Amino acid sequence: MIKAAVIGATGYAGANVVSLLCHHKGVELSYLGSHSYVGKKFSDIYPALLGHCDKILQEDTLVAACSQSDVVFLALPAGIASNLVTRALLSDTVIIDLGADFRLKDKEFYKQWYSLTHGNEELLHEAVYGLCELHRDEIKKANLIANPGCYTTCSILSLVPALPFIEKNSLIIDACSGVSGAGRGEKVSSLYCECNESMKAYGIANHRHTPEIEQELSLQAGGRVMVQFTPHLVPMSRGIFITCTANLNENVTKEMITLSYHKKYEGQECIRLYDDASKVETRFVEHTNTVAIGWSVDDRTRRLVICGALDNLYKGAAGQAVQNMNIRFGFAETEGLETYTL
Amino acid sequence: MIKAAVIGATGYAGANVVSLLCHHKGVELSYLGSHSYVGKKFSDIYPALLGHCDKILQEDTLVAACSQSDVVFLALPAGIASNLVTRALLSDTVIIDLGADFRLKDKEFYKQWYSLTHGNEELLHEAVYGLCELHRDEIKKANLIANPGCYTTCSILSLVPALPFIEKNSLIIDACSGVSGAGRGEKVSSLYCECNESMKAYGIANHRHTPEIEQELSLQAGGRVMVQFTPHLVPMSRGIFITCTANLNENVTKEMITLSYHKKYEGQECIRLYDDASKVETRFVEHTNTVAIGWSVDDRTRRLVICGALDNLYKGAAGQAVQNMNIRFGFAETEGLETYTL
Amino acid sequence: MIKAAVIGATGYAGANVVSLLCHHKGVELSYLGSHSYVGKKFSDIYPALLGHCDKILQEDTLVAACSQSDVVFLALPAGIASNLVTRALLSDTVIIDLGADFRLKDKEFYKQWYSLTHGNEELLHEAVYGLCELHRDEIKKANLIANPGCYTTCSILSLVPALPFIEKNSLIIDACSGVSGAGRGEKVSSLYCECNESMKAYGIANHRHTPEIEQELSLQAGGRVMVQFTPHLVPMSRGIFITCTANLNENVTKEMITLSYHKKYEGQECIRLYDDASKVETRFVEHTNTVAIGWSVDDRTRRLVICGALDNLYKGAAGQAVQNMNIRFGFAETEGLETYTL
Amino acid sequence: MIKAAVIGATGYAGANVVSLLCHHKGVELSYLGSHSYVGKKFSDIYPALLGHCDKILQEDTLVAACSQSDVVFLALPAGIASNLVTRALLSDTVIIDLGADFRLKDKEFYKQWYSLTHGNEELLHEAVYGLCELHRDEIKKANLIANPGCYTTCSILSLVPALPFIEKNSLIIDACSGVSGAGRGEKVSSLYCECNESMKAYGIANHRHTPEIEQELSLQAGGRVMVQFTPHLVPMSRGIFITCTANLNENVTKEMITLSYHKKYEGQECIRLYDDASKVETRFVEHTNTVAIGWSVDDRTRRLVICGALDNLYKGAAGQAVQNMNIRFGFAETEGLETYTL
Repeated sequence: MIKAAVIGATGYAGANVVSLLCHHKGVELSYLGSHSYVGKKFSDIYPALLGHCDKILQEDTLVAACSQSDVVFLALPAGIASNLVTRALLSDTVIIDLGADFRLKDKEFYKQWYSLTHGNEELLHEAVYGLCELHRDEIKKANLIANPGCYTTCSILSLVPALPFIEKNSLIIDACSGVSGAGRGEKVSSLYCECNESMKAYGIANHRHTPEIEQELSLQAGGRVMVQFTPHLVPMSRGIFITCTANLNENVTKEMITLSYHKKYEGQECIRLYDDASKVETRFVEHTNTVAIGWSVDDRTRRLVICGALDNLYKGAAGQAVQNMNIRFGFAETEGLETYTL
Repeated sequence: MIKAAVIGATGYAGANVVSLLCHHKGVELSYLGSHSYVGKKFSDIYPALLGHCDKILQEDTLVAACSQSDVVFLALPAGIASNLVTRALLSDTVIIDLGADFRLKDKEFYKQWYSLTHGNEELLHEAVYGLCELHRDEIKKANLIANPGCYTTCSILSLVPALPFIEKNSLIIDACSGVSGAGRGEKVSSLYCECNESMKAYGIANHRHTPEIEQELSLQAGGRVMVQFTPHLVPMSRGIFITCTANLNENVTKEMITLSYHKKYEGQECIRLYDDASKVETRFVEHTNTVAIGWSVDDRTRRLVICGALDNLYKGAAGQAVQNMNIRFGFAETEGLETYTL
Repeated sequence: MIKAAVIGATGYAGANVVSLLCHHKGVELSYLGSHSYVGKKFSDIYPALLGHCDKILQEDTLVAACSQSDVVFLALPAGIASNLVTRALLSDTVIIDLGADFRLKDKEFYKQWYSLTHGNEELLHEAVYGLCELHRDEIKKANLIANPGCYTTCSILSLVPALPFIEKNSLIIDACSGVSGAGRGEKVSSLYCECNESMKAYGIANHRHTPEIEQELSLQAGGRVMVQFTPHLVPMSRGIFITCTANLNENVTKEMITLSYHKKYEGQECIRLYDDASKVETRFVEHTNTVAIGWSVDDRTRRLVICGALDNLYKGAAGQAVQNMNIRFGFAETEGLETYTL
Repeated sequence: MIKAAVIGATGYAGANVVSLLCHHKGVELSYLGSHSYVGKKFSDIYPALLGHCDKILQEDTLVAACSQSDVVFLALPAGIASNLVTRALLSDTVIIDLGADFRLKDKEFYKQWYSLTHGNEELLHEAVYGLCELHRDEIKKANLIANPGCYTTCSILSLVPALPFIEKNSLIIDACSGVSGAGRGEKVSSLYCECNESMKAYGIANHRHTPEIEQELSLQAGGRVMVQFTPHLVPMSRGIFITCTANLNENVTKEMITLSYHKKYEGQECIRLYDDASKVETRFVEHTNTVAIGWSVDDRTRRLVICGALDNLYKGAAGQAVQNMNIRFGFAETEGLETYTL
């Protein structure tokens, strides 16, 4: 039985970590930190957990959380975690950061995309990028795990097996997110009536998940990959859906691509493959830690179309964070996680 | 390990039974019957279960299903099950009927509300009404279990502890259902564009769940209870929400009512209580086998307002069916069932 | 051509007044006041009106608005209008208040339900309750018009013709509102993810529309009427749906009720009648100034069930406000208003 | 006053034509044809028009409709209109076909994409492509008008002014449609519970709007344009949203593009322009005949991102059909049409 804390426990991502940990057989919740609701019960804010998590919310203090825990999950806005995490804390506690501060290896990129100076460059290089299916071995030994973003998890996992077959710099990713991706902040743009029955693009040419996708695809491809990433908001609570289009290299066949996907992801419990991109739907992965990936070839245009889907709060945030914890602490990889449901 | 079959496996209720059974540690799926999709894989129809339930769908034949199973779940339209179930089949197999055929004890009521002559009056009296929290002891020994309807489960559980305190015949139940309550049939009225951004009442004065609610409330109250039941369709996929209003008896206090609820449902894993009706929301019970119940007293009007909520496909159908199986076969009551989630 | 101002022009109700006035052939917009967006263009906040209302938003100053206008629409939170409106202003300008401050005739009720001391009792008695179909003649001469609430417009119009036939104090009104009823304020409870796929009751026993409904029904019935009013939030942007249940008086037949509705509302352009309560749906009145009303009799229980629906931002707020203006200034009653659409 | 008929009046597109014509000051409805509801009133099927269109539905017979009408709107599945329309009928009646049969100029393309042999090649060349903003002069004289598809109207109008500045064959169009795009047919895939809270791609590499887009873009560009068109289904009733990505030619600046859009669409009442693609939202054009178009330049990738939005049943179908009628018969171009609303 390990002890786990969550800092930022009342945002959507943090609260989902709490809920998953309540279901986990090897974990006891030691500390829940909140910015806005100190002194209240967690179940006052999330009544669905009444009787299951009535723990009192405490200050958002990392040091206190670490002192009582084997693992601490951070779910904080950009620019905070990098100033809180220290090597000393990491010597005793594993930190899984659901935020963006330790994802980009290059502090210049961080500055460019986040308009922030990174507070802890040294740890940037120590942090392991917690995309479980690609970095499992490193995660096993990591004390600082940078949990990837929702769009990025979906994009990277969907694209990696196809990289050998496409023109690297022809990659267009149009992505759609449910509204929970915007968090639980009180913003007009997140109101029901502003989102319902509508859709729009946002963050065109400057969304912060872009460099994260490019960093990892470049690493996997063994060379610089630049993508066009355009996110959209669609009227659903949960779910990421991506459509990737790329020019095929000459002589590539669909069979070669299909083989590559199956080979790359053989035995992965959290990946579901379809050799037809139109079979991917967000509802088939909602409330699960599963990524669905499908691919189609357009012979007329000689392009590859890949669709990917995941639940942004689950595999795109809290679920992958727990998966990282499972890997790091030697639990079964999907302990406490759902991989399919209706 | 017991063997379980589902007849009507590709409707919403049946498919949810299948999904829950796939998660159940003590059950092996023996037979899946379908009216419309014989020969296809279950996961062709419900791709969310790809890799988890790829079983081939067979004919909707109860005899075949029984011969291979310890328990058979029936999810069929009204008027079919009563003509299929026989004492012989029940001698070897437990049948849990998610349909309406064995719920009403009086065949005249059945005729009046369903416009059908009941095919098997004898079994009508043998069948146990599978409202787990009220009939657990009978369910343990039953071979034919009539799984209650969604509106009825919500209404009865929400009202029983309040019955001693109200004028029996003042009960008004306004109920709302998500669209999955209308099933997976190809009807214009269930199309997205006919339901989205709209609500309506239906079945006013003649909804078939009315006599079921009255039968059980009368039994629990020890005297005839007649209710005004008005169901509505609201734009959500899952969820039942009921608002019950009743005149309070003289001298009744809120404390007396609160005490009654807590006493009645002490230790029930699938019931969540709030002493404030406005705390009940369907999203807090979605994807769980839990009923949420809250009550408020209006001192000005001397009325009691009770709200109840459940997931119509879970505690209102498939989940309660599995709960019945768990009770009947001696599994832990919530084995394979979720009682809370975000 | 008259000149019209809107104070509170960027809330949902105010903005809908603006949009309707832009379509009105006899009105020129003179002044748009806003609390939060002074200095911006109206179309910056509501881009749907780009090129049609690019007017600059000014301070929320009633005096300034009145000095430039024949009519001023107020769309402000409770407790503000009553302190701003004066007889002097009313001598030159017609004020149509979409808020609650001039709706209740009894300042004690106002205090009791709003927890506010009314700032202007004298004007309370001068104000005309702007429920067009019931007070048209008074509205023609009024300089201060209290535009009714959304729930109240729907409830009162749906019930008035039935009052002679029912036990007055048996009236139960269960009402549902789309989320725009909660306004454009930045509240967690109005976020997309908190409302989508869920419903709940709120304001049980204490919603502020209760005394307004009772005041007008009592007036129309010629005797005290007390109702049980329970509002709910449902996942749609627009729409009010009410279900009213009442005990029928002896010997009342459905025909008598039907006759009463048709007689009462003969020739009313904004009322649509169905002699079947299940034919009422909010989508059939969305984006119109129409109220749909239907009634059904339950012979078994001897109760009347009435359903009513309207668009809360249209006939329930901005549309009725413009209808009041039309009546007051002698325009055709539905000038600038839509009464049906797909 | 002209006389107008609608064949296929009870599908979503046809019914919207009916509703718009009811609002049109210069048109009288002469004939409503329906496949499934002959003998019923139109308002039985679309109760929102009760009292406004209670006309009896007749057989779907083009000859009968033509004999009583100056203009006939056809809203039929592919492959039917081409076998019904004749030169004789066109000599007396203007036919506006909302279906696909007269959109493609090349019968081979029609065969390839629709898997149908065209029944009337001669008329194919006579038909005018009714994209009002691009073909107004031809429409004025046309007796057979092929009303464009929803995706195509949005894609073509969004792209034409940008064509001089981009690599023609780098065009990627990811498009999303509300569910009404799938029609009112009774299909499982259009059920509320199959569409709500989910999204998916469909018709990848083979959607029938592809050749229509390419035909018109090629015409406008003066050379062959091939696009990658991937449509998606998103959970909203109405609305088309497209995101187009293309490689910029060398030395192109954003200013050049902005100038081109404003010049091309100066004075067009049904086009709304934004020099920022993220300002386009479907809700801002819902229930209107307006197309919203925005563009952004990504300097990092040297790509152009264009977003476009329209209401698929309005400017994408019925509204444009009425706009075509207005142009053809000399009415004001937006008579009976809405161009903005909240």
